[in-house]
Amino acid sequence: MLILETIAEIRDFVSKERAGGRAVGFVPTMGYLHEGHLSLVRRAQEECGPVVVSIFVNPLQFGPKEDFSVYPRDLERDSRLLEECGVDALFHPPGEEMYPGRHRTIVEVGGITGCLCGTSRPGHFQGVATVVTKLLNIVQPHRAYFGQKDAQQVLVIKKMVEDLNIPVEIVTVPTAREADGLAMSSRNVYLTPEQRAAAPILNKSLREAAGAVSKGERDVKKLVAMVSSGINGVEGASIDYVEVRSLPDLEEMEILEVPALMALAVRFGNTRLIDNIILGE
Amino acid sequence: MLILETIAEIRDFVSKERAGGRAVGFVPTMGYLHEGHLSLVRRAQEECGPVVVSIFVNPLQFGPKEDFSVYPRDLERDSRLLEECGVDALFHPPGEEMYPGRHRTIVEVGGITGCLCGTSRPGHFQGVATVVTKLLNIVQPHRAYFGQKDAQQVLVIKKMVEDLNIPVEIVTVPTAREADGLAMSSRNVYLTPEQRAAAPILNKSLREAAGAVSKGERDVKKLVAMVSSGINGVEGASIDYVEVRSLPDLEEMEILEVPALMALAVRFGNTRLIDNIILGE
Repeated sequence: MLILETIAEIRDFVSKERAGGRAVGFVPTMGYLHEGHLSLVRRAQEECGPVVVSIFVNPLQFGPKEDFSVYPRDLERDSRLLEECGVDALFHPPGEEMYPGRHRTIVEVGGITGCLCGTSRPGHFQGVATVVTKLLNIVQPHRAYFGQKDAQQVLVIKKMVEDLNIPVEIVTVPTAREADGLAMSSRNVYLTPEQRAAAPILNKSLREAAGAVSKGERDVKKLVAMVSSGINGVEGASIDYVEVRSLPDLEEMEILEVPALMALAVRFGNTRLIDNIILGE
Repeated sequence: MLILETIAEIRDFVSKERAGGRAVGFVPTMGYLHEGHLSLVRRAQEECGPVVVSIFVNPLQFGPKEDFSVYPRDLERDSRLLEECGVDALFHPPGEEMYPGRHRTIVEVGGITGCLCGTSRPGHFQGVATVVTKLLNIVQPHRAYFGQKDAQQVLVIKKMVEDLNIPVEIVTVPTAREADGLAMSSRNVYLTPEQRAAAPILNKSLREAAGAVSKGERDVKKLVAMVSSGINGVEGASIDYVEVRSLPDLEEMEILEVPALMALAVRFGNTRLIDNIILGE
C-alpha cells in the first residue's frame, strides 16, 4: 500500500489509474478506523478498481469547544488495517498540505444543515462540505463512500455534489454495528464500561419506533416520545435531540410520511453519540 | 462549432478531448461578446487544444435590484463571432440545466469579497464563486481564462481554486480597451452618446495615478483624490468607489506598497462601469 502525504503524489497516482481506464474508489475518513470504515472500503473494492483511503482529522469541522485536539489517532494501526484490507493508497496529508497559508473559502449547504446535528454543532457541516470538496478535487475519484451512520452528512454531501456538479458518484453504505446494535464510531472508545453497556439503547429504541411504524403508527410526537422515554430510562444518558425529518429535505412533520429519517444524538458524559434509522423502509 | 445545451453533452465532448491527450481551454462568459471576450478566446487558443466558451447569464450573481432580466443577450451574434474565431464548442445551458430543483449550496470566499465591488454588490461574489465552481466541475478544463478588467473577480476565483484544490489553472488576460481607453464591457451598450464620450475619464485618471506613482508618489489618499477629482470633473459621472488595495489580499493601505491594485466603480446614469490598474508594475 502506498502511503502518500502530498497532493501532487496522490493526484499522480490517481491520474495514472484513470488513464489506465480504471474506476477509482475513495473512502475519506478521520482515521481511528473501525469495522464501519472497513465496510466502506470493502464496498469500494467490490465496485471500483484501485481504492484510496484518506485519513485527515479536519480542524474546520470541529467547534472551538469540541474534541479536535483529543480526537483519537493511531496511524500505525490504521495503516496496518488498510494494508490487510488490500487498500491501494492511503492519503494522509499534514495539516499544512490541506490548509497552507490563509484559507478563505467555504462551501455551505443551506437549509438541511440548520437542524439535527447542525443545531448542536454550528459550523460543523460547513467544515465537512469544505473539506470533502477539497478531497474530491484532490483525489478525483469516480465514486466516494460514506456511512449511513452520519445520515445528515450523507444528505449534505449528496446535495453539495449535485448543486456544484462535482463529477463523482456518492455511495451510501449501511451503518456497521456491534453485536448488541451499537453503531460503530471512533468516539466509542471514550465510553466508560457502564456507558458502553448502556449505549445500545440508542439503536434499540430506534428499532422499536420502526416497529411501531410498521404496525401503523404515524404520529411523529408519539414516535419521538417512545424513543426519548426509552433513552431517558437509562442512567447517564442525556438527549441532545430525537427527531423525525423528511427525506431528502429534512423538513419537520407531524404525521409521518415514509420514508423518513429518525435521528438522534445522545450524550453519555462528555461523549456525544449519534444514530438513526429510516422509518418505513 | 458545436453548440451544446446539456451538461452531459459538454462533459462527453471534453472527456473525449482529454482522453486524446489534448489540453482543454475554457472561457466562461455571460455572452453579449466583445473584443475583451475574444481576446480571452485567442489566448486560450494559443495555449490549449480545443477551446470551450460558455454563455450563461447567472442569476445568482445579480442582486434583486440589478440588471439580470435586462442584461444584454444576443446568442445569434455571439455564436457567429465564436464560430469565426474558430471556437470548438459553445456551452449554452438553459437556466434549469444549471439550477434544477432547489439549489442550496454556495461557495463563499471570505475577506477579499467584503470590499470594492463586494460592498456595492452584496452576494455578487458568492454568486460568481458558486457558478464558476459549477462550470469548472462541468467542463473540467485544464485552463480557464478571465479578464483583468474584473480584477477582484480574478482574485476571488484564484483564491477559491487554490483553497478548494480545483484542478485547473486560472489565466488572467489584460483588459481589452477601445481606442480611447474605455475598458470593453457588455454594459457599455447602455451608455448614451454623452456618457460614452465621458467614460474614458476612468482609464485616463487611473493612468494619471500610475504616472504619479512612477514619479514617486506613495500617498494613497493623494492618489485616490487625484483620480476622484478627475472623475468628478466630468458631467454625469458619480463615483461608487475609488480605492487602492494590496495584492492579493485587498487590504487597505495609507503608504503605497507596490504592486497594488487601484480600482474604481463609477455610475453614468444607471450604468455602473468598473476599471482598474496595477500601480507599480
